[in-house]
Amino acid sequence: MHHSAPLVLLSLLCVLFGVDGGKVLVFPLDGSHWVNMKVLIEELHSRGHNVTVLRASNSWYIKEESPLYNSITIPNTGGFDEEFFGLLINRLLKIKKEGNSIWNRIQLEYEIIMKFKSMYEEMQQMMDRVLGDEKIMNSIQDAKYDVVLADPGAGGGAILAYKFNIPLVFNVRWTIHGEGHFAIAPSPLSYVPVPGAELTDKMSFLQRVKNVLTYFFTQFQIALVAEPIFTSFCLKHFGPNVNYFSLFQDADIWLMRNDFTFEFPRPTMPNIVYMGGFQCKPAKLLPKDLEDFVQSSGEHGVIVMSLGTLITQLPQDVTNDIAAAFAQIPQKVIWRYTGPRPATLGNNTLLVDWLPQNDLLGHPQIKVFVAHGGTNGVQEAIYHGVPILGLPLVFDQPDNLFRMEAKGTAKILDLATLDRNVFLEALKEVLHNSSYRENMQRLSRLHHDQPMKPLDRAVFWIEFVMRNRGAPHLRTQSFRMSWIEYHSVDVILTLTATLFIFAFLIIYVIRYLFRVLFKKKVKCA
Amino acid sequence: MHHSAPLVLLSLLCVLFGVDGGKVLVFPLDGSHWVNMKVLIEELHSRGHNVTVLRASNSWYIKEESPLYNSITIPNTGGFDEEFFGLLINRLLKIKKEGNSIWNRIQLEYEIIMKFKSMYEEMQQMMDRVLGDEKIMNSIQDAKYDVVLADPGAGGGAILAYKFNIPLVFNVRWTIHGEGHFAIAPSPLSYVPVPGAELTDKMSFLQRVKNVLTYFFTQFQIALVAEPIFTSFCLKHFGPNVNYFSLFQDADIWLMRNDFTFEFPRPTMPNIVYMGGFQCKPAKLLPKDLEDFVQSSGEHGVIVMSLGTLITQLPQDVTNDIAAAFAQIPQKVIWRYTGPRPATLGNNTLLVDWLPQNDLLGHPQIKVFVAHGGTNGVQEAIYHGVPILGLPLVFDQPDNLFRMEAKGTAKILDLATLDRNVFLEALKEVLHNSSYRENMQRLSRLHHDQPMKPLDRAVFWIEFVMRNRGAPHLRTQSFRMSWIEYHSVDVILTLTATLFIFAFLIIYVIRYLFRVLFKKKVKCA
Repeated sequence: MHHSAPLVLLSLLCVLFGVDGGKVLVFPLDGSHWVNMKVLIEELHSRGHNVTVLRASNSWYIKEESPLYNSITIPNTGGFDEEFFGLLINRLLKIKKEGNSIWNRIQLEYEIIMKFKSMYEEMQQMMDRVLGDEKIMNSIQDAKYDVVLADPGAGGGAILAYKFNIPLVFNVRWTIHGEGHFAIAPSPLSYVPVPGAELTDKMSFLQRVKNVLTYFFTQFQIALVAEPIFTSFCLKHFGPNVNYFSLFQDADIWLMRNDFTFEFPRPTMPNIVYMGGFQCKPAKLLPKDLEDFVQSSGEHGVIVMSLGTLITQLPQDVTNDIAAAFAQIPQKVIWRYTGPRPATLGNNTLLVDWLPQNDLLGHPQIKVFVAHGGTNGVQEAIYHGVPILGLPLVFDQPDNLFRMEAKGTAKILDLATLDRNVFLEALKEVLHNSSYRENMQRLSRLHHDQPMKPLDRAVFWIEFVMRNRGAPHLRTQSFRMSWIEYHSVDVILTLTATLFIFAFLIIYVIRYLFRVLFKKKVKCA
Repeated sequence: MHHSAPLVLLSLLCVLFGVDGGKVLVFPLDGSHWVNMKVLIEELHSRGHNVTVLRASNSWYIKEESPLYNSITIPNTGGFDEEFFGLLINRLLKIKKEGNSIWNRIQLEYEIIMKFKSMYEEMQQMMDRVLGDEKIMNSIQDAKYDVVLADPGAGGGAILAYKFNIPLVFNVRWTIHGEGHFAIAPSPLSYVPVPGAELTDKMSFLQRVKNVLTYFFTQFQIALVAEPIFTSFCLKHFGPNVNYFSLFQDADIWLMRNDFTFEFPRPTMPNIVYMGGFQCKPAKLLPKDLEDFVQSSGEHGVIVMSLGTLITQLPQDVTNDIAAAFAQIPQKVIWRYTGPRPATLGNNTLLVDWLPQNDLLGHPQIKVFVAHGGTNGVQEAIYHGVPILGLPLVFDQPDNLFRMEAKGTAKILDLATLDRNVFLEALKEVLHNSSYRENMQRLSRLHHDQPMKPLDRAVFWIEFVMRNRGAPHLRTQSFRMSWIEYHSVDVILTLTATLFIFAFLIIYVIRYLFRVLFKKKVKCA
């Protein structure tokens, strides 16, 4: 009899969540995005759902065989150009150090944009192959998936969801159409900073001008790079009446990989579910040798440094400066670093190929996180309340760190002007000025003070969509409208015209009456 | 040992919710709004919080003595004019039946607006007395409240929260500044219907024109009625630098008394927490006599009719028509009705002074709810999945029912054109066309499919504000801006002007070069 308790609990959970064994088709993006998607897949798998992942044959990260999912492999030759992006930071630094040549900078920016354009073209070609592959199409048709879970940084999820009329959930921060919110929620440019503008929600007049210009530049870039590719794809496969961006904006739920401890407050939508920090977990025990190293730091504590997976190497002079600065402090340092050993390295610094970042950041001995500002790392720092010394490189990293700086939880350094003294002073400031830690701990408390864990919330809404075949009651009608309709331009023009006509009529009548009266007066006189 | 389990549970709850014995100052609105506020007070009381309610000495509903709260009584003579609003429906019907005289209708509309104006003036005079009463002011000062919980249909909550620098939570659907969302969230008029316009989120061009015009009319009304009163109050007490509507929009959390099973999807804000249906509970057993009556209906089931607390009497001919229609159906009817017994009343109809509405609507025998469309009744109908035959009277009732009609869960009748046949046909349609019930049951399922009960969510966020002294990270900067700044009008004008100047310069240069070339040509020739 006593053994029935777990069963009762399990059946209670089944009643609570109402779905057992749903079928999920996952359309991920490769690289660091996959790390996030996998967290959702693990959770879905553990709740008894059947997950199928669409992967490119040449994927870096997404394995064909996994106990968590079945996979459908699509032949592909393109994808993320690791070499190009790996060397990007060195080229950027070179341009910055050589006196900020604007022409070189524009050229590099153009190269990055064209790199994304070719990535989008490859995505579209891959989708061409998928839609043309009868075997894959039949297998998707026959499987009768309950939901498509997609990363909208790739365009394919929305296409398959439309093609097979399956409800669609996005795991999103960036989309092929820009930042997630900007793709569906009203974003008044007067207090919502555009990604890339490095502004806060409190802007001066000139900052607002900068924000508007950045917005137009971003829209121009999207119109130039992403739109034509996906529009022509839709025209080819679905005819002229299907607009790709409407398909895309029509997603049932947007699981947003941030929250308002990270993001500035801004308008949102009923079908945006914030799951910032969903990948974070309480720290587990460190491996014995690492724990011994951490404990050996005593009262001074430990600094953790990692610049993420994408950028493998910094220029050697930068590396030497950082190592030399580390050598001068009493703290111990754990540095994720794969290049040649810097000559200036101190005894207090441990170089590692890989580190258990979440478990380290959750260790009470960790004082500062030296980071590049990728979303995952910043979220983990918020989760564990560790202040950041930021070395932003590319993409959203400057913006992520800028948000932390505005909230008093991080200090940002420019790699281009960095030397050992600048780095040392900044490190000491974050170590010894207690406001950084206090602010980050406050942010951490706010982040944890939620009625439900972000991962549980995310999975609740995926299962909601499966249970209810979508979430149409949470989706607005906005994206079915043209720009002119959405902004009521036609209505305003009509009303203004009507007003003018009335005004003219009234003036005409008054003038007429006036003349009659005037004539009378003339007669009288 | 076994008795410790509840204690463990209690302390677990305390850890989970982190507050014990907070101090809450409640600034309610009287009448049906108090019914809602009391649900929150009961819950706060049961969780060990200390609640103090500010009440007017002549309050209808809010008792001075209660086991749930302490009260502070403010001398008052004004308040809600029960007689005026009680007779309103009779006057409205008279106007409508007498051939829709627009002039009479405008006159009545004007009277209603002026009635609200005098209510706002009385509110302000009451607040004058509060702020001038040293004893009350000292008692509030000394009590050190953790949060003000206010109904923004009254203006006083925001004033006290500002005066004593206490975090502010609104229990809101309507405010002195219009519908709650329209007071703080972007509301594109192209797909967000303005209250009173009786439109959906899918509008034709002409409907969008109507929506924009209704919006301007509403804003005009607010500017005419509410703004001057509260602005002059703020000027008098806080000086020229404090804008009342900024105080008001600065509330930390807006507990919104609806959700998207009721409302059409629209933009929202991070500090809006939806608690629609928070007052609903699973049905309790009915009193023996009522249960016997309900069971006697057999396979035909029961119809429940109630037109709310405000409108006490319908014109006698309407009442007779309704009673006659009821007499012709095989269902039993329970009718909340306090007037003289209609001559046409059938044996199947039970007249009652009061009915346990929630328990009745939750009874499986109930087939249709004949209702005036007050928010509480509609929420209860959604909660229990009972379709509605609507007889909207005033205020938000037509809009509430219109939403239900658009979702296929209600049929609306116009009291002005109602006769026994029209009523009977409509009743039969809602009874026998299964789509009404199916749609309402679907809405009910969606409403119940939430990760957390609405009341728990509401109390979580009140306690969140108490724990964290507000929720500034969820509040946007928008209301600190002028209209021109918010809409970036200054930035757009500046950029346009710059563009024009550049264009003129370029044209000028080209013309100059052209002339030079032309002159050369002339010389050559």
